[in-house]
Amino acid sequence: MTITKGYAALTPNGKIEPWEFQRRDVGASDISIDIEFAGICHSDIHQVKEEWGAAKFPMVPGHEIVGTVVAVGTDVKKFKVGDIAGVGCFVDSCGECEYCLNGNDHWCLDNSAYTYNGIERDGVTHTYGGYSKNIVVKADYALKVPAHLDRAGTAPLLCAGITTYSPLRHWNAGPGKNVAVLGLGGLGHMAVKIAVAMGARVTVLSHSASKREDALAMGAHHFVDTSDRVALKELSNTIDIIINTVSADIELRRYISILRQWGSLVVVGAPGKPYAIDGFSLMNRQLSLSGSNIGSIKETQEMLDFCGEHNITSDIEVIAASEIDNAYDRVLASDVRYRFVIDTATI
Amino acid sequence: MTITKGYAALTPNGKIEPWEFQRRDVGASDISIDIEFAGICHSDIHQVKEEWGAAKFPMVPGHEIVGTVVAVGTDVKKFKVGDIAGVGCFVDSCGECEYCLNGNDHWCLDNSAYTYNGIERDGVTHTYGGYSKNIVVKADYALKVPAHLDRAGTAPLLCAGITTYSPLRHWNAGPGKNVAVLGLGGLGHMAVKIAVAMGARVTVLSHSASKREDALAMGAHHFVDTSDRVALKELSNTIDIIINTVSADIELRRYISILRQWGSLVVVGAPGKPYAIDGFSLMNRQLSLSGSNIGSIKETQEMLDFCGEHNITSDIEVIAASEIDNAYDRVLASDVRYRFVIDTATI
Repeated sequence: MTITKGYAALTPNGKIEPWEFQRRDVGASDISIDIEFAGICHSDIHQVKEEWGAAKFPMVPGHEIVGTVVAVGTDVKKFKVGDIAGVGCFVDSCGECEYCLNGNDHWCLDNSAYTYNGIERDGVTHTYGGYSKNIVVKADYALKVPAHLDRAGTAPLLCAGITTYSPLRHWNAGPGKNVAVLGLGGLGHMAVKIAVAMGARVTVLSHSASKREDALAMGAHHFVDTSDRVALKELSNTIDIIINTVSADIELRRYISILRQWGSLVVVGAPGKPYAIDGFSLMNRQLSLSGSNIGSIKETQEMLDFCGEHNITSDIEVIAASEIDNAYDRVLASDVRYRFVIDTATI
Repeated sequence: MTITKGYAALTPNGKIEPWEFQRRDVGASDISIDIEFAGICHSDIHQVKEEWGAAKFPMVPGHEIVGTVVAVGTDVKKFKVGDIAGVGCFVDSCGECEYCLNGNDHWCLDNSAYTYNGIERDGVTHTYGGYSKNIVVKADYALKVPAHLDRAGTAPLLCAGITTYSPLRHWNAGPGKNVAVLGLGGLGHMAVKIAVAMGARVTVLSHSASKREDALAMGAHHFVDTSDRVALKELSNTIDIIINTVSADIELRRYISILRQWGSLVVVGAPGKPYAIDGFSLMNRQLSLSGSNIGSIKETQEMLDFCGEHNITSDIEVIAASEIDNAYDRVLASDVRYRFVIDTATI
């Protein structure tokens, strides 16, 4: 065991403060990563505040992790000391269920271990995340980070990147397809960059008219202020895929109507209360309301390689660990363009 | 013009009574069909009662039509006198929009003409449906009916058949796929027969335990009484496609949970009020809530040919036209196994 410095929520009071805890010794299939950057995901805040049910405290949040490999277990071939490695939303899965076996380990049917606020597969050990100096994980659940990418800007790819890449791939974003991204925040801005790189024509739908310039700078081809009902109506029957990153309770019917044949509105950020969906709105043109969350280890690696190839990183604001509380407040106020990343040298 | 005898709703009072009206002369691209059988679809009742908005009276319902061609226009090559022909839910479309041009004329963006309670593309002429002795339609919107199929049992294929065939095809029902059919009525029993013929493993979900034997006789491999929560839970993560034929307001969440990766719950009969859908329930395994309605002329022909090949017809109760009111009452009481068909010789 080694002692690691980190920042933790000690109780559900929403405050994040310095805390020291133990990381396990590096096992035969493990690697040890000295963390350099850790992104702040909105889901960190939900969990710290127990908005997604009872949580495990102290909690060290963080599942957008990039750092340098400092030790490798005897069985590890995937990494060597000095490699740049990433860790995303989960650090283990059963390896035996249909989803682990078919390459979709993020849907493991038997206790995949979330990177933090989770339990290791031993059934007792709490997991602690990336707001810390070091992490020890199974090499198979760590990702290889393209060395030429900016490391701080790469951290958010491990959650925001894969969360948008996976549905864009699954619903076939690419040349000839029209993608709309609803909400231009941490997830939304990644969806724009990735969909553009995939070759799709991308429309940003946002209630913040002030984000128009940013959207176009990210490569979006079109921007529609969602309060402009005329502009929205002009999109009727034109969009193949809507990536809905808005976790507020919005009237989905307005957006479903812009889908063309076989189109899908994909929810990647859901509100706490159910959507009200008129079944008839989906029947004409065989439309769908769909969902997606994170992605497999295999697909996360594919996404990182894709981002490496297209030089895609997140637009970020790097902060010191002491600023996390303030950053949380600003995330809740949608005052971030477009992701906070903690420089763990400040821990 | 010729005078045709039929049965019509003269007002929205829900009663269907004898009425005589005119059919147009057979134009160059038309055929005239002496109707032999017309199915009763639940949507007839919704429209007669103006439950789907203001309707056009007198209304001659019926969009599940089978009969014999008695005249063909000078330009018609598709049919000859004596052929067995069918008419489904629409009798014209613009022919110029993207959907007419790409083979999905049922999604026409510019005034497709519904078979009844609709308007011809001249913008003024009311359409009258199958509860009548004769119909004149454009040949391109009539279907060729396999001559060896029972004509009365074939009539419901024109709506109930295509309404279930189209989503089963689109969501890839076939060998290795598990299909669940929710509700065993007019639509549901067609979904079972067609999905079985496509090679899928079919589970019927019904709150009527008394329908178990029927379901198995239709070829279903498994029957689950939806009030049996244990049996339903055992289906978790096993079903690829759910065809939801229940138009009552049901708790969809219970059924979404039985879907496996990329599964879809397809609504083909929607309730009047919106569904409440928890976005999170769709996120794991990239699930979808989808919709579907009827099908194109091309796909309807494909469905009829498929049913011809597999000897699929609807399980029906043939009635006289004078019994329509009573049949409507029995449809509303779910007292029909599984479709009423009017013998138009009784008109």
